[in-house]
Amino acid sequence: MINLGIIGTNWITEQFVKATDETKSFSLTHVYSRTEAKAESFIADLDKKNIQISTDLEAFFKEDFDTVYIASPNALHFEQAKLAIENGKNVIVEKPITSTIEEFTILDKLAHEKNVYLFEAARHIQEPIFKKIEEVVADHRADLSGATFSYMKYSSRYDDFKAGKTPNVFTTKFSGGALYDLGVYTIYDAVVLFGQPEKVCYDAEFLSSGIDGSGSLTLSYPTFDVNIIIGKTKNSYMSSEIYFGRDTLLLDNGGDINHLDWADDNKNITDVPTNKSENPMDSEAVEFARIMTEKDQPSYDKLLKYARIVNRVLEQARTSAGLVFEADEEN
Amino acid sequence: MINLGIIGTNWITEQFVKATDETKSFSLTHVYSRTEAKAESFIADLDKKNIQISTDLEAFFKEDFDTVYIASPNALHFEQAKLAIENGKNVIVEKPITSTIEEFTILDKLAHEKNVYLFEAARHIQEPIFKKIEEVVADHRADLSGATFSYMKYSSRYDDFKAGKTPNVFTTKFSGGALYDLGVYTIYDAVVLFGQPEKVCYDAEFLSSGIDGSGSLTLSYPTFDVNIIIGKTKNSYMSSEIYFGRDTLLLDNGGDINHLDWADDNKNITDVPTNKSENPMDSEAVEFARIMTEKDQPSYDKLLKYARIVNRVLEQARTSAGLVFEADEEN
Repeated sequence: MINLGIIGTNWITEQFVKATDETKSFSLTHVYSRTEAKAESFIADLDKKNIQISTDLEAFFKEDFDTVYIASPNALHFEQAKLAIENGKNVIVEKPITSTIEEFTILDKLAHEKNVYLFEAARHIQEPIFKKIEEVVADHRADLSGATFSYMKYSSRYDDFKAGKTPNVFTTKFSGGALYDLGVYTIYDAVVLFGQPEKVCYDAEFLSSGIDGSGSLTLSYPTFDVNIIIGKTKNSYMSSEIYFGRDTLLLDNGGDINHLDWADDNKNITDVPTNKSENPMDSEAVEFARIMTEKDQPSYDKLLKYARIVNRVLEQARTSAGLVFEADEEN
Repeated sequence: MINLGIIGTNWITEQFVKATDETKSFSLTHVYSRTEAKAESFIADLDKKNIQISTDLEAFFKEDFDTVYIASPNALHFEQAKLAIENGKNVIVEKPITSTIEEFTILDKLAHEKNVYLFEAARHIQEPIFKKIEEVVADHRADLSGATFSYMKYSSRYDDFKAGKTPNVFTTKFSGGALYDLGVYTIYDAVVLFGQPEKVCYDAEFLSSGIDGSGSLTLSYPTFDVNIIIGKTKNSYMSSEIYFGRDTLLLDNGGDINHLDWADDNKNITDVPTNKSENPMDSEAVEFARIMTEKDQPSYDKLLKYARIVNRVLEQARTSAGLVFEADEEN
């Protein structure tokens, strides 16, 4: 098993550590947190022993472990990942990996120079249900005529925001908003299934803090468009859809995909059998560990290419909508 | 009952005549068709007697009837409606009433001068289920935070189009395409429920004939956006949605609305009871006849205002997408 260090002690880090336990892919050895008490409570909750705690990030990266998982606020990813790579660690960063394509390029180049792995934790594209979608698309590619992906969930932080607070995910300082959160899932859907779009246009509904509470994104491909609807200020229940002429593949959701249906020519709707693991992060943990253990360069290159395109599309979408992050000004 | 003349002998005209029979709102007395045989067959199918047939449009409008229902290809609406009004007929025109806002303005002015009624047959906004939606929106207006309307049906004519034929609905000559067909329903949804949008942006997927096979339309209102997805080249099954913060009203469809659900804060989904008439054109037939019989000017003005805004939005959407009709060049 690969030794794992983690940054942050939130629910998503906990879910990732559980996934690595369930799949015996990584072994947690080091935790970084700003406060020792938080780290201790996190470790106790997970029923772990002999875990090294650091409250100093520089010191943390000098410790002896192989791979770090970073699930801090978006705007912190870049500096933390950069420091990790400089210290020879493999890096798994929650999506989106960076705030700008410039930052992405720097990390990509640095990881190559340092001969370490750089993964963007796009968990859903590793799940069996997504592999099934890829299969269906491959089987019907000749009829492919577009898609609609939607992922819109009312965030409890939005209540805080409306109450006058400034939760990270609703600020330009932390590269927040709908696009750089739920939007990443739907852009991965499009990029993995259809490749790099020719044109990107994002129509955003801005909040007073300058970020996008929700929005509608169009990705144009040579022969069809992909429409994407995302938001953190509304609850949506509509299906996502991939079109094949008269036939349609229905996904219950564009990000957290749990069920597939096939609607045929006569509008008969039938279930498409597939598997769904209990912990949605299991598959990515297994795949990242496998790639590193087997040194599977083609698979790694493919994931890195997806990440590069997705992060480019994210920035193109932002630019088209006039959505500016503080990270844009820093570089 | 009001005497009715009809132009065209297609299925939609038949459905409208049946609606007028069922509701005893109009009495069919005159039929215009280019060929007498077609008119006779149409009348026989409806089991009608003593119907006057005209194969000359000028002569048809000289006949003695009160109101004409026009369901010809879009691009013919304007000249036919104009001629009807000039001959003192009340006019019910299938949506969209015209190809350009200029044409709409001419008809509007002329109808006013000639003291006749001009109706756009936006049937769905007259249905009980739509009145229920208006009620729900009124009850929750303080929380209103946007909507998504979709109406996307694969047209059998698209097969003809792909086989190299030129069906009217897929040509710029007849003002065809997704926007000026299914799109009209969804724009009516937005205009009736939320008023006139501040900004209109249409991203269209063009076919080789120059019309939009499908597209994504954003209508911007001061505090929220409405996203619209329409198409004649794909089959969609996603629900349409109106957002009220954490709550969501679900419509099974944005045009042919048959069912409503309410999704609450806890994501419990419950049926919203409502009525649906067998023939979706019953309600509009009753309402148009009532307005004329009772000379209900406020109701008439409201419908005409909706029609004006919808036709303006249609043209703004076309312009934003670069979608040009032959009707644009003729004026």
